[in-house]
Parts: sequence; C-alpha cells; structure tokens
Amino acid sequence: MKYDELFALLRRRGVLWPSAEIYGGVQGLYDYGPLGTALKRRLEEAWTAWFVGLSPDYHLIQPSEFLPEAVVRASGHLENFTDPEVTCESCHAAFRADTIVEKVRPDGVDGLTPAQIGEILRANQLKCPNCGSPALSVPTPFNLMFPVELGVTGHERAYLQPETAQGSYLAFARMWDVGRHALPLGIAVIGKAYRNEIAPRQVLFRLWAFTQAELQIFFDPAGFPVPFAQVAAEPLPVLRVDRRQQGEEAPEFVRAEELVRSGGLPEFYVYHLAQSYRFYRDVLGYPADRLRLFEKSDVERAFYNRIQFDLEAHLESLGGYKELGAVHYRGNYDLSRHSEGSGKDLSVHPTGREPLLPHVLELTFGVDRHLWALSDLHLGKDGERTVWKLPPYLAPVTVGVFPLIEKDHGAYALEVADELVREGLAARYDDASSIGKRYARMDEAGAPYCVTVDGESLAEGPAKGTVTLRARDSRSQERVPVRELAPRLRAAVRLPRPPRS
Amino acid sequence: MKYDELFALLRRRGVLWPSAEIYGGVQGLYDYGPLGTALKRRLEEAWTAWFVGLSPDYHLIQPSEFLPEAVVRASGHLENFTDPEVTCESCHAAFRADTIVEKVRPDGVDGLTPAQIGEILRANQLKCPNCGSPALSVPTPFNLMFPVELGVTGHERAYLQPETAQGSYLAFARMWDVGRHALPLGIAVIGKAYRNEIAPRQVLFRLWAFTQAELQIFFDPAGFPVPFAQVAAEPLPVLRVDRRQQGEEAPEFVRAEELVRSGGLPEFYVYHLAQSYRFYRDVLGYPADRLRLFEKSDVERAFYNRIQFDLEAHLESLGGYKELGAVHYRGNYDLSRHSEGSGKDLSVHPTGREPLLPHVLELTFGVDRHLWALSDLHLGKDGERTVWKLPPYLAPVTVGVFPLIEKDHGAYALEVADELVREGLAARYDDASSIGKRYARMDEAGAPYCVTVDGESLAEGPAKGTVTLRARDSRSQERVPVRELAPRLRAAVRLPRPPRS
Repeated sequence: MKYDELFALLRRRGVLWPSAEIYGGVQGLYDYGPLGTALKRRLEEAWTAWFVGLSPDYHLIQPSEFLPEAVVRASGHLENFTDPEVTCESCHAAFRADTIVEKVRPDGVDGLTPAQIGEILRANQLKCPNCGSPALSVPTPFNLMFPVELGVTGHERAYLQPETAQGSYLAFARMWDVGRHALPLGIAVIGKAYRNEIAPRQVLFRLWAFTQAELQIFFDPAGFPVPFAQVAAEPLPVLRVDRRQQGEEAPEFVRAEELVRSGGLPEFYVYHLAQSYRFYRDVLGYPADRLRLFEKSDVERAFYNRIQFDLEAHLESLGGYKELGAVHYRGNYDLSRHSEGSGKDLSVHPTGREPLLPHVLELTFGVDRHLWALSDLHLGKDGERTVWKLPPYLAPVTVGVFPLIEKDHGAYALEVADELVREGLAARYDDASSIGKRYARMDEAGAPYCVTVDGESLAEGPAKGTVTLRARDSRSQERVPVRELAPRLRAAVRLPRPPRS
Repeated sequence: MKYDELFALLRRRGVLWPSAEIYGGVQGLYDYGPLGTALKRRLEEAWTAWFVGLSPDYHLIQPSEFLPEAVVRASGHLENFTDPEVTCESCHAAFRADTIVEKVRPDGVDGLTPAQIGEILRANQLKCPNCGSPALSVPTPFNLMFPVELGVTGHERAYLQPETAQGSYLAFARMWDVGRHALPLGIAVIGKAYRNEIAPRQVLFRLWAFTQAELQIFFDPAGFPVPFAQVAAEPLPVLRVDRRQQGEEAPEFVRAEELVRSGGLPEFYVYHLAQSYRFYRDVLGYPADRLRLFEKSDVERAFYNRIQFDLEAHLESLGGYKELGAVHYRGNYDLSRHSEGSGKDLSVHPTGREPLLPHVLELTFGVDRHLWALSDLHLGKDGERTVWKLPPYLAPVTVGVFPLIEKDHGAYALEVADELVREGLAARYDDASSIGKRYARMDEAGAPYCVTVDGESLAEGPAKGTVTLRARDSRSQERVPVRELAPRLRAAVRLPRPPRS
C-alpha cells in the first residue's frame, strides 16, 4: 500500500495514531492503540526469544533511561552526537543540512565537514525550503540529546538516553560480578531512546522517542567461538561497499562461508549477521527478495565501528530500502571510554586467561520501524479482502470466537473464548453484524484463526463439542473438538528460537 | 528483612542496583538486572490479565510519554503539580518542605499554604539539615515536571508525562471511535512517569522515572453496573477518615456490602476497591494482615478526586505502611478540562442514551514499588534457607534444571531445559557446584521448582524418562515423567484472572 492509505488504515483500526490528536497532534509523536500495543509486545517477546536465546549467557536487563552527564561525556555523545543544522538568515527556520542538500546529494552528508556542506549549499544555489531565500547559514552542529535538570537546584544534569546501548555498558561490571565470569557475555535491553531530531518525519522512522531492542555481546577478541556451521551455507543478500561504488543498489546473494573465506569478514560477525537476517526472514516473515544487508563504508560508519552492515527492507509505503537494524562491531571503544570516564578499570579476568578489555558486537533493532515494516510487508489486499498476514505468534489477536446466532450460541461461544483466554491465548469474542463482517474485521486485525460456535456444537455437549476453525490465509475451514483448540493454537503461537548450538 | 540487608541481597543477586554504579550511582535512579527485569515483566502481565481482564471493553494502549504544553496546561499540571520547596538562605541547599517539618508534623504538609508551612518552620525553630542555619525561606512552589524543548528552535515545549493517566484521556476520543460506542470503556496504560522530586529517597519508592500501571474507566454516572455479588461478602481492611481522626492506625475488616449499605460508598467504587485488594492478596500473595485500604480526607486528596482510598502494605524494610496504589473517583474533571483545552467536545453519545461527558474511575498501581514489596513480603529466611516465595506465575525463573553429575547427565539435562524453554517456560540449566548450592541459588531467585536429571532418567530412555521434581516451598520431591513437566509447569504459571461476570 501507499503511505497515506496504510497510515489511514492503521489509524482507523486503532493500531496507531498521532499523539495528542485532539490538540492537533505533534509530528514525531505517536500513540499505539490496542492492536499496536499487543503487536509491539509480541514483537519484543519474539526478539527476546531469538536473540537472548542465542546463548544462556545472554540476559535481558532494564537500565535507567536517564544518563548522568559524566556518562555521555565519556561516551562521546556530548561532543559528537550532533546533526549539522542550517538556519535561514531571512525567516529563521532551521533545517537538517541533509534534507536541504538531498536533491543534489542523495547519499546524505555523512563524513562531510560543516564547511564542505556550506560549499555544496553555495555551489548549488540551494534555497530555504520555507521562504525561498538563498541566505542559508553555514551548518552548525546541533546536539540531538534532550537534557533534563534533576532536582531543585538543577546542579545534576542528566540526559535522556540517545541509545539503549549505554545502559548495557554501564551495567557490564555488575553483570560480570553477578554472572559466571566468562566471555562471551550478552546484555540485552529493550527500552526507549530519545533524539531531538531537527525535523522528525516519516511516521515511526524518525521519532523523538522510540523503542530500541539491542544486544551487546562482550567477547574476547582472541576468540569468539560461534556455531558457524549452522549458517555457513546460508545465502545472504549483501550489498558491499565495492559494488555500491559501482552504482549498484540491488543486493547479491553470497553464502555466509564465502563472506568469511574471500570476503574478509570474521566468522563471529557473519554468524550474527546471518542470525539477524534469519530473524527478519524466518521469524518476522519478511520476503527474502525485499531484504538487503547494506555495508557501510569507512566514512559512513561511526569511527569506532570496525564493521557495519545495516539490515534494510524495501518498503512500498516509503518508496525504497529503509534501515530497520544493524550489526556493529564496535571494538573495545565503549568499555575503554567508560574505564577512563569512571576511573574504574573495566578489564575482566576470565578463568584461565589473561585480563583483557572485552570487545563489543552490537545487534541493534528498531522496534517502531519494524511495526511499520510488519504493516507494509504483511498488510494488503488479497482479492477483495484486506488481510494482515502476520505470523501467528506476532498477531495481536490469535483467534476470533463467534456465535453463529448470538441469541442461541452466544453463551457457549463466550465460554469458549473465556476458556482460551484463561489458557493464556489472545481470544476475542465478537457477535456484531454478520459472520462475513466478523471474518473481515479479524482479517484486518491479523488474527490467524477464527472459531464459530453453532447448533452442532451445542448438540454435541460441552465435553465433546466441535466448532468450525477457519484459517486466515487459506480460508480453509475444518471441524475441531473444542478441547483441541487450546493445544493447537498454543502450538501455532509458540515463539521460534534459534537452533541449539 | 531490614532495608540495608534486603537491598544488599537484591543487588548481589542482580535484581536491581543503583544506576551508573561505576560512576558512583545517582540517587533516585536504578537499573533492573536479569531477575528484576523478568519479575517486572511478569508483574505487568499479571496486572494486565487481572485489571484489563475485568471487561472485554477494557484495552491496553501505549501512548507517547511526551505531553505538549497545551495538554499539561489544560490538565492543571503546569499550575498545580508542585511541591513546596524550602531554600536555605545561608548555604543555598534546597529541600522539600515536608522533609523539614516531618519531625514536628509527621502527616506531611498536604493542604497547607506556603505561609502556613513558613509559620511551622518559624514556630518550631527548624534549621537547615545541611548547614544548621535557621535562615530558611518561606516555601515556594516547585514544579515537578521535566520540560523538554523539541526541535532546533525550542519553539515546541513538551513535558515528560508526570502520570500515565493523561495519555488515556487524550486517547479517549479515538478509542471511542474505534470501539463499539458503549460505556463503560476502560483504557489501561503501563508506562513511565517522570517527576523531578526535590530529593528522591527510599529505593523504588520515590524515583525520578518510574513505571505506572493505570486503568482509567470511563463510565456513565447515571449507572455503572458491576457484578457486585462477587465481592459483597468480602471483608476489606479499611481505615476510614473518622477512625483516623480518632488516632487509629490499624485497619478494621468491614464487608464490602457494609461499606455500601452504611458506609456511604457507591457500589461501583467498592467493587473496584475490592478487586484491587484481591489482586494484592490473591494474585501477588501479600498477607491480608499486612494490607490497609487508607481513606484520604478532603484536604489530603486532589480537589477533583471525589473518593480516594490508597492501597498500602506494611513493609518491614521501610518501617511502616507504604502506598502501593490507589482507587480514585475523579468525576468528569479530566474530560471537561481537555474538552476546554483542546476545543474538542469529548461528550459521547452511547446508543440509546443522551449525550454525556463520562466520569472516570482510576485504578493506579506503582510497578517499581510493588517490586520492592514483593521482595519485602516474600523474600526472607526459612530456617537456614533464604527463600523468595514468589507466586509461581511471577517468579523470574520457573524451573531450575540440574544434572546430578554433569559429565554423565549434563547433555540430557540441557535437552530437558531446552525443550521447556521452547515450550515457553522460564527454565534455567545449572551445573555449577553441588546440588545443594544449586537449590539455594534457585530458592533465592524465587524459582518455584527444580528438576534433577540422574542415571535413572537416562536408563529409562528419552520417551519414558522420569526426573526428580522438587518444590521450593514444601521441599517435597517426587518422580515425574519428563513429558509431564511442561503441562504441569504451565498450569502452575497460568495467570490468575478475575471470575467471569
């Protein structure tokens, strides 16, 4: 679907809408409604099952979202977490530099100095998008963090965290003490990150506050053993820097072992890139031909990232590939900065080895962006129907439960729905309008199954009664004993996990 | 346990610790470790199952945590969400007025004007807690919200939400449109709230950022039907205003129907008070003799609250009753303020009735405070053992899985643990040190069950193998077929839900 059509549908169905709508809404702030909230929770659970499930030494924590100033000074965010900003000297409107130069330089302004960007503005005679004046300032750095003053006197300045990663780095020493003193050690966080975007745009893709799911794996650079055989033969849709420089935009499928053997990438990196790709394809169900593993060049990636591939999906609603996550090999930058900043040596001494400062592999994942991608890639027309073909374990509603005729079968259908809810399943009773319309509502809500209670169900009696079970995608209908519903539905919503290593 | 002992244990076990510990920590900011994070998720799920489970017309949403200034102006927070603050004119330290007067006025300063508080300071010759000077200022109001400037120019001022309730009020119109146009309509939110406390103290009880779970029920004041018979005979431990004024501190048990018949409280209010109390007692497992439903007087409660009982628990670690939640009958204050502030009439027109502005019943619940209460009330000594007697569905780990001898039974035990994890159960494999020490670790982590794999398990073969299942509280051990583990554990962790109405 096109952007406007998709957003209108999501809004109408109560998946999401602009925040403070009755006050006119605020760009860059959205509310998740009942379906969006349930989908977000399930997406977070699926992410946790998959990524924290990669090792028993990976753990999910929930650190504070406020970072003291000393932390962001050490991490470099105070100095470097900036976007170049251009001000119109005529109307005083402010813009991100990349939005102004994007027509003449679609790749953005990563790696350019303010003076170089200024030169591009002049050379191309670019004008203020607001008033048309050519009097644009030379770009100045604008820090994207939100400061907050804690306490009465405001002596204690903190920042809303610009990424969840810092909480994991701060917790590393404590987690080492609590754990079994071995590397690799993984610390995962699902939490809010906050960025004072100069001009938020593209619903769920550039927000002032957004949810990240990130896994930081701390490892010994002398050896990070992974079960590489599990992924060796997997063809990965990569777009590497050399092909990008030749103007290519489409990925080519290269086997994981090839990326190691002749592609110059370490096994541990390719293994995690492949597991991330599998999560997108196999768990979230994104079509392989919509995915791209986009390698970032030296100038594009942050200086502390040694290797970076962004995981992108081609989204019709946004007209191209969009970044949904990434795998960053960050070296020991983070722990060395916080060792220095805090004065506490964060080296560790694994049993039987020399002390060392662990390196970090970061798997990062944008929860809100994936909510949009799950809509773009799975919600659409199937003939006359509008169907949200979510994988069953992600669907906000697992099963709609209907009485064929409300006054005759309503009480029993309610009982069936209630029992499924007590079994921990997301069952939703619906008796409004016709069965056809109920199916249509459930299709739009992504419910993979519907159950209809009828006269036969009642005649057979509560112990042996059967109901009609209808599958969303095939529209097949079969007669199923009520007592078999819970186990069958439970099997359908079981979260996929990586194979045992 | 005493405060220090309990906090040290929680920190050592990785349940929670001061945020940015390596930088010396920050008062009022905490991180949840693996056990704390899992417990918090389960507590949130239990809350949702119970309270959102009260009606199919109650829904969980996730609104933005940033509120535009127009919203907090309309809600009254800009003007009134303040604490009186006293500054020392000698050393310039600032304090909450109630912390300075608490020795002479333990009930706090609710309802007093700044001038009256100033009078108390003078009359009692109170001094600066920091430098001892008597030169204390007359109190001035200090707004507890954190402002944030959105965008480059800072034209758009927003606030971190001081309570999750506002998000529900803002979403009401949209939820009405999406829903089936009937009252009561419930909107629940689990989210962060932010308060610039003048001096945060008491771990998890006064935080700069904390998690609230709140249910706002919008209803027709002409009739809010509830299944009162379910709670009529329930004795509730109330401490009403009249008995408080006689100096009583202990609650007395009064039956719900009595509170309606001769206590002057409406049925809908008492029903929800009773369901909240049952959640604390039956779902969270707090002992009835530690709970108190504490009625707030006219001057203590916010002026828009018509009825307010705080739900309190007596916590040894904090030396008395502490508020963990509340039930507020807020009238139509919120919707009328936002109708005025937004210019959008928030009256609704339920099918077959006159248009009306719904009233609001608010059920509010402090997630972090309950995490502390679940520690205080359930974690302690049982003879020689330290045991966290959490209800099974709340426990961060459901089952520890051990090999009797690692080299002989390790592989099979790992397989058993892995299969339970795939079934969605929180199983944790452990082969470190002796079986006794593994039991002790699981007891401290609150795991209700442990399973040991031994030679017999292997000899019997994978299809029919049995294992030893040990229960945390009774310490009873029984031999159980492996294939029965998942269904038994699943039944134990099934979330309690309110009875069908």
